[in-house]
Amino acid sequence: AVSIRDDARARAILRGTQRLLRSLNFESLSEVSLGNGRRADILALAHDGKAWIVEIKSSIADFHADQKWHEYREYCDALLFAVAPDFPVEVLPADTGLILADAYGGELVRDPPSHPVSPARRKALTLSFARTAAMRLLAQVDPGVKME
Amino acid sequence: AVSIRDDARARAILRGTQRLLRSLNFESLSEVSLGNGRRADILALAHDGKAWIVEIKSSIADFHADQKWHEYREYCDALLFAVAPDFPVEVLPADTGLILADAYGGELVRDPPSHPVSPARRKALTLSFARTAAMRLLAQVDPGVKME
Repeated sequence: AVSIRDDARARAILRGTQRLLRSLNFESLSEVSLGNGRRADILALAHDGKAWIVEIKSSIADFHADQKWHEYREYCDALLFAVAPDFPVEVLPADTGLILADAYGGELVRDPPSHPVSPARRKALTLSFARTAAMRLLAQVDPGVKME
Repeated sequence: AVSIRDDARARAILRGTQRLLRSLNFESLSEVSLGNGRRADILALAHDGKAWIVEIKSSIADFHADQKWHEYREYCDALLFAVAPDFPVEVLPADTGLILADAYGGELVRDPPSHPVSPARRKALTLSFARTAAMRLLAQVDPGVKME
């Protein structure tokens, strides 16, 4: 099957978005598994524990292929899309945040509406984020560590 | 001031201990700042959210220089020391866990007594761990990201 995601483009948007998120005082992690079996492109945690999910769309086709983006909403306090500056943003749902990003940086052009996640789910999300980030960091620092 | 910590030795113990912790299903992070201004050598999070702090001692002098190791106890569910296999372990407090480690791996030779940390502190610890790990991982993956 041919992927409809433009990987190079998605990686560029990812990098710029993570840089932007840092400047907004969010620490972020890519490809985080959620409790519903789906995987968020980016999960970002603010200093106060607030969790944002950012979905990256490399093209209109990539966006239209994802019929289930609304399922991310219940796993975060706010949901955003991140796209390249030339993306036709009018196709994106208006009740989500919007980030424009290239490989060097990004801009938050529409604040996301917030919808607090339940305390139990926030706890599970934060722990999963913590363990995933530490595991990936250790794999970088010690290539000899055993990974399942 | 001359450091009484043998850094090469401490790094070897760190690596072996982190490998051991993974095999025990803990994800771990080195040098984590705690709410009391101190920094844990290793903070490790289990799948159920349980938090261990592991203090590395490269020599007896290194242990004796640390008069405040007990202050770590209130920031974890269990406190352990990790030392090299030739360390005279009888000088270490018996009411802590004990890990022997070299650069290649380690062994948990005494289980730590557990003393559950408060929910509020566990929440703060987990969030701080998550954000620190993600920040360090991003710095590895994207050297161009701005760090404060």
